Amino acid sequence: MKTNWTIPIALLLSSSLYAADPLPSWNNSAPKQAITTFVEKVTTEGSPDFVPLPERIAVFDNDGTLWAEQPMYFQAFFIFDRIKTLAPAHPEWAEKEPFASVLKGDLKSALAGGEKALVEMAMATHAGMTNEEFDKIIRDWISTARHPDTGRLYTEMIYQPMIEVLTYLRANGFKTFIVSGGGIEFMRPWAERVYGIPPEQIVGSSIKTKYEVRDGKPAIIRLPDLNFIDDKEGKPIGIHQHIGRRPRMAFGNSDGDFQMLEWTTSGSGPRFAMIIHHTDAVREFAYDRQSHIGKLAKGLDQAPNLGWNIASIKDDWKTIFPTDN
Amino acid sequence: MKTNWTIPIALLLSSSLYAADPLPSWNNSAPKQAITTFVEKVTTEGSPDFVPLPERIAVFDNDGTLWAEQPMYFQAFFIFDRIKTLAPAHPEWAEKEPFASVLKGDLKSALAGGEKALVEMAMATHAGMTNEEFDKIIRDWISTARHPDTGRLYTEMIYQPMIEVLTYLRANGFKTFIVSGGGIEFMRPWAERVYGIPPEQIVGSSIKTKYEVRDGKPAIIRLPDLNFIDDKEGKPIGIHQHIGRRPRMAFGNSDGDFQMLEWTTSGSGPRFAMIIHHTDAVREFAYDRQSHIGKLAKGLDQAPNLGWNIASIKDDWKTIFPTDN
Repeated sequence: MKTNWTIPIALLLSSSLYAADPLPSWNNSAPKQAITTFVEKVTTEGSPDFVPLPERIAVFDNDGTLWAEQPMYFQAFFIFDRIKTLAPAHPEWAEKEPFASVLKGDLKSALAGGEKALVEMAMATHAGMTNEEFDKIIRDWISTARHPDTGRLYTEMIYQPMIEVLTYLRANGFKTFIVSGGGIEFMRPWAERVYGIPPEQIVGSSIKTKYEVRDGKPAIIRLPDLNFIDDKEGKPIGIHQHIGRRPRMAFGNSDGDFQMLEWTTSGSGPRFAMIIHHTDAVREFAYDRQSHIGKLAKGLDQAPNLGWNIASIKDDWKTIFPTDN
Repeated sequence: MKTNWTIPIALLLSSSLYAADPLPSWNNSAPKQAITTFVEKVTTEGSPDFVPLPERIAVFDNDGTLWAEQPMYFQAFFIFDRIKTLAPAHPEWAEKEPFASVLKGDLKSALAGGEKALVEMAMATHAGMTNEEFDKIIRDWISTARHPDTGRLYTEMIYQPMIEVLTYLRANGFKTFIVSGGGIEFMRPWAERVYGIPPEQIVGSSIKTKYEVRDGKPAIIRLPDLNFIDDKEGKPIGIHQHIGRRPRMAFGNSDGDFQMLEWTTSGSGPRFAMIIHHTDAVREFAYDRQSHIGKLAKGLDQAPNLGWNIASIKDDWKTIFPTDN
């Protein structure tokens, strides 16, 4: 069959504004309509809901919203891999929890110590080097490490429908930000390539750093002290610190995002919130109220009253991962 | 005389890239040439010094670099005005330093307590309200308060040559950031209008905040606790936290900017630093090594060895303030 390429090429070249369907991986159900209706409304000049360009700020949680988060936050896999790599220099870890369990491959016991154990492991693996050394460690890891269940690179487990939302919003003048409980320096080395989100538009948890001139060479040294936890109430605080303007749109998936969505939608004028509900046990993972990772209960209960949208992965996403097609 | 407006209008409409002179308030001396030579070099595709768009980050100190800072940082005038406004609700201030001196109009005694006194006054005037209330307080003040010597609005004491640099750099794909020792929330309410720099591109000193739902309405409350001092070694740290990428260009005027310029220029590839040297006692203020505000000694000593540019206001700026013309 002879194909006429004229129309497809014209569509590729045209702005998403005029493309036939800016969100092809979404089913034509309510959540997709809610996104496009909101964007059309706030970008129509002369409309009472028009939002000027500088105020078009959209914030996205990362784990469970832009990429998967099961069976553990992907940053935890990084931490475990680092502990294994660093173990020869730390013979004491063989006897010391939670490190000993990690080295035995018993991740459940390693995580039994809860947040305290996780912070201890994070400090042992995220501090003690310059920011540039850490950047390289992350780049090396993210380009080689693979998810234990799917065998895919972690960056192949991003959500294609959300990549389309990011692209669609940027084509409509929105600045897109990540606001994640994950480490800010864990995300920066790859988020620009993978999501099109530059380092200066990433908000996350952080450890303290100090500036030092070593042998005549200035460096930023990563210290084993918590600086900021960008989760729950921390998300509006992080937004305020980094962005200094209340977002117009917010996307999250767990109760850790509740305050970010609440802060976003309680401003004046048009506001938009969407919760990604993990409902698809076949194509992804199904979890909500009882889950340790990505627990979602308060959000499900309150979303209807608050006018927040809920996207069900099973029902509303045609494709999940970019390589699914 | 009949004027032919065709050419001037064409120039106004054309991009700065092609305008005859993007920096008309600068004399044609070495600093201006250094700026344009650097920008042309890093924006020429195929040049070994070409810098891709996302890496074009330029950082600017504010006090003494983008606007004047004598006889005191302008934020100190805000603090004094606030103390006078709030005094009726604080009868104890009549007897309590440094407040008592402020209320008597003796600013020298008020500042005699050094940084400790200043921080105490800042906490008493910058905390205890929501971020939105503080935003309104700043907007009201900046649109009415006037400099005690010149009688001008503070926003009329911005440097026209630097406004041209900001515009010129943005026209060449640079993202422009403020990195100031001043309060981040003191600058955000007006920097977009005055400098074209949006809130998310402002880095500054900050106090802690907390997120709270009051009477069903979420708010960010300003707390009387220091969070971050964005000065000296704090500037590279602030840049790292907010921008996450080493700048290509940095502009400062005091030794408080030394580490920012040092961090900027010690990266690989083409880098640029410029110190604004306050040398013009007639048109502005002349001060450097001995000044309490905006002290500049280390920078003057080391700039030549480090390849940093020094712009002398007296010699290199044709115009200083926008209304001088």
